[in-house]
Amino acid sequence: MAKRKASALTGSFAPGPLSPLCTDMYQLTMCYGYWKAGRHNEHAVFDLFFRKNPFKGEFTVFGGLSDIIEFIEAFRFTESDIEFLRGAMPAHTDPAFFAWLASVDMAPLKVYAVAEGTIVFPSIPVVRVVGPLALGQLVETTLLNLANFASLMTTNAVRFRHAAGPGKTLLEFGLRRAQGPNGGMSASRYSYMGGFDGTSNMLAGKLYGVPVKGTHAHAYVQSYRSLDELASRELDGRDLAALACGFREKLGFTTNDGELAAFVAYSLAFPDGLIALIDTYDTLKSGLPNFICVALALHELGRRALGVRIDSGDLAYLSREIRARFVAVAAQFDGIAYFAELTIVASNDINEAVLHALKEQGHEIDAFGIGTHLVTCQAQPALGMVYKLVEIEGNPRIKLSNDVAKVTIPGEKQPYRLMGAGGVALLDLMVRAGEAPPVPGERVLCRHPYDDKKRAFVTPAAVVSLHRLYWDGAAGGRVEPVQTLEESRAAVQAGLPCIREDTLREVNPTPYKVAVSDQLFNWLHELWNKEVPIPELS
Amino acid sequence: MAKRKASALTGSFAPGPLSPLCTDMYQLTMCYGYWKAGRHNEHAVFDLFFRKNPFKGEFTVFGGLSDIIEFIEAFRFTESDIEFLRGAMPAHTDPAFFAWLASVDMAPLKVYAVAEGTIVFPSIPVVRVVGPLALGQLVETTLLNLANFASLMTTNAVRFRHAAGPGKTLLEFGLRRAQGPNGGMSASRYSYMGGFDGTSNMLAGKLYGVPVKGTHAHAYVQSYRSLDELASRELDGRDLAALACGFREKLGFTTNDGELAAFVAYSLAFPDGLIALIDTYDTLKSGLPNFICVALALHELGRRALGVRIDSGDLAYLSREIRARFVAVAAQFDGIAYFAELTIVASNDINEAVLHALKEQGHEIDAFGIGTHLVTCQAQPALGMVYKLVEIEGNPRIKLSNDVAKVTIPGEKQPYRLMGAGGVALLDLMVRAGEAPPVPGERVLCRHPYDDKKRAFVTPAAVVSLHRLYWDGAAGGRVEPVQTLEESRAAVQAGLPCIREDTLREVNPTPYKVAVSDQLFNWLHELWNKEVPIPELS
Repeated sequence: MAKRKASALTGSFAPGPLSPLCTDMYQLTMCYGYWKAGRHNEHAVFDLFFRKNPFKGEFTVFGGLSDIIEFIEAFRFTESDIEFLRGAMPAHTDPAFFAWLASVDMAPLKVYAVAEGTIVFPSIPVVRVVGPLALGQLVETTLLNLANFASLMTTNAVRFRHAAGPGKTLLEFGLRRAQGPNGGMSASRYSYMGGFDGTSNMLAGKLYGVPVKGTHAHAYVQSYRSLDELASRELDGRDLAALACGFREKLGFTTNDGELAAFVAYSLAFPDGLIALIDTYDTLKSGLPNFICVALALHELGRRALGVRIDSGDLAYLSREIRARFVAVAAQFDGIAYFAELTIVASNDINEAVLHALKEQGHEIDAFGIGTHLVTCQAQPALGMVYKLVEIEGNPRIKLSNDVAKVTIPGEKQPYRLMGAGGVALLDLMVRAGEAPPVPGERVLCRHPYDDKKRAFVTPAAVVSLHRLYWDGAAGGRVEPVQTLEESRAAVQAGLPCIREDTLREVNPTPYKVAVSDQLFNWLHELWNKEVPIPELS
Repeated sequence: MAKRKASALTGSFAPGPLSPLCTDMYQLTMCYGYWKAGRHNEHAVFDLFFRKNPFKGEFTVFGGLSDIIEFIEAFRFTESDIEFLRGAMPAHTDPAFFAWLASVDMAPLKVYAVAEGTIVFPSIPVVRVVGPLALGQLVETTLLNLANFASLMTTNAVRFRHAAGPGKTLLEFGLRRAQGPNGGMSASRYSYMGGFDGTSNMLAGKLYGVPVKGTHAHAYVQSYRSLDELASRELDGRDLAALACGFREKLGFTTNDGELAAFVAYSLAFPDGLIALIDTYDTLKSGLPNFICVALALHELGRRALGVRIDSGDLAYLSREIRARFVAVAAQFDGIAYFAELTIVASNDINEAVLHALKEQGHEIDAFGIGTHLVTCQAQPALGMVYKLVEIEGNPRIKLSNDVAKVTIPGEKQPYRLMGAGGVALLDLMVRAGEAPPVPGERVLCRHPYDDKKRAFVTPAAVVSLHRLYWDGAAGGRVEPVQTLEESRAAVQAGLPCIREDTLREVNPTPYKVAVSDQLFNWLHELWNKEVPIPELS
């Protein structure tokens, strides 16, 4: 019965590394077009970037690089992939193409990128892929897929953290509502990178090392209807249920028996881990008094309860009432000062706006469990990263558009972050590959890419080169290690203070400046004028 | 270089079947609580259902069953899972618990469900899990995860199909914007189930058998700047570029040379597959004329171009202009009547509302490529399925709430769909397990679960039992085969005509009726009154 299968090809997860077939068909048809025309090895440069920050904000946090490099490293069509492709491509397709595909790996590519966890801005390439035209094309869709959700999710988590404030514990509780198992895994991983403290998702704990948290649900509370259902009542040689009932009588509480039984049962299993879910019947009239009785009983045994969780109702009001009651108990009983500081966890349909609102209302919540809004990025469920060809065989490619913001910046470029004296970023500057980089202490002309009236001289106190070469197949593959999740998480926290608060804030944030060098500006506009001749009116 | 790893534990996909650790930690802590109290084998019934249809609609399509049964079948903690759990649970946790966990599989469970692809409604359990309390709890989060996105995605696809109309080809193009690789895979799979015709996602083609489609992107068009860049121009012994240029001269077109070269090059690779992306430079002034020239050249060789794709601009207007031009060419040249019916594909930021609007504006689009809005379910990125304990050891559990719609219907239940004479569903009726089922031709009293004034006698022409037993570990595991993707896709199409159009429509749809038997109604309200005693006012 229930035999394990070695792999689940038709299931939710494919075995092993991400298949190179996880791409759009047109990448393969274009690839065949290039190959057929003998152009597949032409030297090309592709930029992966976005045009608009998500969530009506003015910043984005880059995520997904570790997955991208892993994908690039493992890129190989298997025999069965090739077999499938033979059937999917037209019958007349040259068999030599499949032989070529079977031989492809990403050794001829170079992949430059900004470090994972960097705060990034529109137009600056977060990944730059340099190498044979066909190979750059083959990885497009997968790179977009891997960068888009990871960056969106990390940015979302950073925004939630910003809204909650630094002193609060943030827990990701969204697995059940996530977009599939992998959506859930990515959510756990990248919300941790963005500054969450943990997740409910055990697999994310196992695979990514994210701290896991969790206690019990309403079902557990409901599974008890009376104290008679307690098979055991003994902890440390004392009757915990009797102790709790004693406190209930002493304090004059009338509460739900099943709920009290559930808290006792949970404490028997986790004598030092009670966080009681107190809103199954009535938060203030039953759940909280029941918790207090069990917590006082645990205290008698030299144990400490940890706190309560509320999952419904007016969270600000309830948390204040609960805190007041905790403080009162701490005053009423001896040697129980810690009671005033028991943890209050809240977890009902929390989004960024709710966190801001709670702060304004005043609340006593210590930790938030956040699900749906976080993991599905409900406020904006997709980031629009794009991947554009900017150069072939040394010739620039410029994609023009009636919408100026959609004009691509051609050619291979090197982006820098120019820092002011206080360690705060002034702007990001792109220069042409080969152009001299900006130098600390030296004045450099920075220009708006499209508006010739917007320009400024900047004398940076420090210059950060944003691109690093992570993958260079010719030099053996990974030439710069990608950061671990913990390192990227630290990078996010280290990077945020370098961005002005008015760029990070929720309401009416100030756009960060992204500039090009004078040389790049002139070249861009020369090409632009060449591509679009002055129209003749008659 | 680029060695393949056997598995990518830290990557986007876990190897093999979905791990039982893909769950919330509290399922394991609760499980320990039950085990510690000796209650883990108590007989329990859990219902998986939702309370509100998504997308402001009045119907939902159930998806995810095939993944759920696969997960149930493969459920086993590995040694490394147990090792991880030892570290994640408190140090005092009884070691015998881990030994028990290591022995757990889902053989003692029964899983009933509605068939995948069934149109379903709030409150009716789509999955019913019957068996030991602890096992039912262990599968909760994963079942929710697998059912939520699959059902949401399928429902979204059905809505897009409904909006586009039956004659149109619908293609899912969303991989790059999907929520991770698995989000993309699920989107391809369940949009096909919901009535899409294909996907751009090659891996979904390989793993799920979804038809894959795709031609070329703007980058391909931009990769050519002139006709001189064509390494070859010959097709069937003729110079295709010269033929196309001849038509261009004859018809007096002035168009972009690089674009013409790209269409020629693509045709050399795919002589019977040209769908030209015509909006890189100017849709009507350059792209369309260039396509016409190449299509006429192909016609000279006895080949046929397929059509064009537009990815920007006013799709209704452009499609009408393009169709008019196709019709004009068909009239202008001999033996080319098919030209009037060439395919027009549109693919720019299309959502359900855009499809409805296009229909009203009048358009000539044959096929839609739909990405972001479809795959992220942008209009509502999460479905709120819940999983509730409704019975333990034969005793009902009722979850009360101030919000009447959140009151759970207790006990084990059997849902039926009562059909009218015309093959249209009248309502869904839940009866208590063991109660006599409704019978065709016999009048049955159907009651609103919460409102005692809403009731009706129904004499069904036919009765469909909605639940089937899919998994019965004691009887060897899978006792009813889950449907293939194609079967579920057919089930959706077969099921839709059985639901009244006013329930399916986009604007102000009529809610479908979900009822309980008189016996279940009375029992539910008796329990309700027992749980909530009449309050004393003084």
